[in-house]
Amino acid sequence: MAYINLTEGLPGIRALFDFRPETAEPLCRLGDVLLHQPNSLSRADRELIATYVSSLNDCYYCQTSHGAIAAYHLNGNEDLVSQVKSDLGNAPVSAKLKALLLIAGKVQRGGKQVTAEDVENARRLGASDLEIHDTVLIAAAFCMYNRYVDGLGTWAPKDLESYKERAAVVAEGGYNRIPSDIQARTGTSAG
Amino acid sequence: MAYINLTEGLPGIRALFDFRPETAEPLCRLGDVLLHQPNSLSRADRELIATYVSSLNDCYYCQTSHGAIAAYHLNGNEDLVSQVKSDLGNAPVSAKLKALLLIAGKVQRGGKQVTAEDVENARRLGASDLEIHDTVLIAAAFCMYNRYVDGLGTWAPKDLESYKERAAVVAEGGYNRIPSDIQARTGTSAG
Repeated sequence: MAYINLTEGLPGIRALFDFRPETAEPLCRLGDVLLHQPNSLSRADRELIATYVSSLNDCYYCQTSHGAIAAYHLNGNEDLVSQVKSDLGNAPVSAKLKALLLIAGKVQRGGKQVTAEDVENARRLGASDLEIHDTVLIAAAFCMYNRYVDGLGTWAPKDLESYKERAAVVAEGGYNRIPSDIQARTGTSAG
Repeated sequence: MAYINLTEGLPGIRALFDFRPETAEPLCRLGDVLLHQPNSLSRADRELIATYVSSLNDCYYCQTSHGAIAAYHLNGNEDLVSQVKSDLGNAPVSAKLKALLLIAGKVQRGGKQVTAEDVENARRLGASDLEIHDTVLIAAAFCMYNRYVDGLGTWAPKDLESYKERAAVVAEGGYNRIPSDIQARTGTSAG
């Protein structure tokens, strides 16, 4: 049971969005800009960064939900998502994405872990300043989302099929749809 | 020098807001809801939580800027801000705020560090569910802001007077003013 009084049946961060719509709004918008809006980094790449950091933070809800969204964008390649989490060194991703994932992993341990050499390495492999910026901010943002979800003891379903179903909705519609789910629950919107 | 090409002369997160206005907008709004908008937790209390977490994350820019804003709200009591950072156990703050700061410190180490007992203790000392929620989210958000600022190697002035001057502006005007600073820089707004 969550540590505060949340609506039953809403998983993870969605129960927190329901509890505090004033913070849900910027949190959803941030997620949408970072993970869904057009970017030279693919949606799959950005969701892999989010999933990898959530895995390092041992956040079951976030790594499972964003892992499912990453797999959706990868035409169902769940094995690649698993390998990025368990064996990044040998995962068949581009050298550039691997360099960005290494930066994300350092951000997870602490901002000061990132070095000029890490960034130079990613740049040499083709990463732009904007891509480096967004990688650092995605990793930092998931250090927030993960702590928010686990620090308030939210509920996470174990049924993996429910994450897949939700992933298709979010992968197509983006993160700004989430507040309308909340309105749908109270009957003020068709969602 | 920062790891990416940022406008010179803008300190810390303000250079990052200038670099990427699309993410600046929700990041500023989140800060404003959590730290500035009306709340049963005082602005001083909320800035102390932000400062304490930034200190645990060893982020010079964030702990100095938010420490100055906390001191502003505390009628200039910089000693209290210092003591919360260096010796929380003996700091002369209410038992309720101390319980919330202990939760924030656990969030800094990881979401799963927070226990039902920590939350029950804060509740027994008078904290509401909303106050517990906001404490966890402020702490989580500063685990993001701190990593963002340090992970991209931003510049932080050492001149403490500049932080005090800025603190007065933000303490009175809130965090949603910050994007207008950026417009002011490009001459599109009087800020």
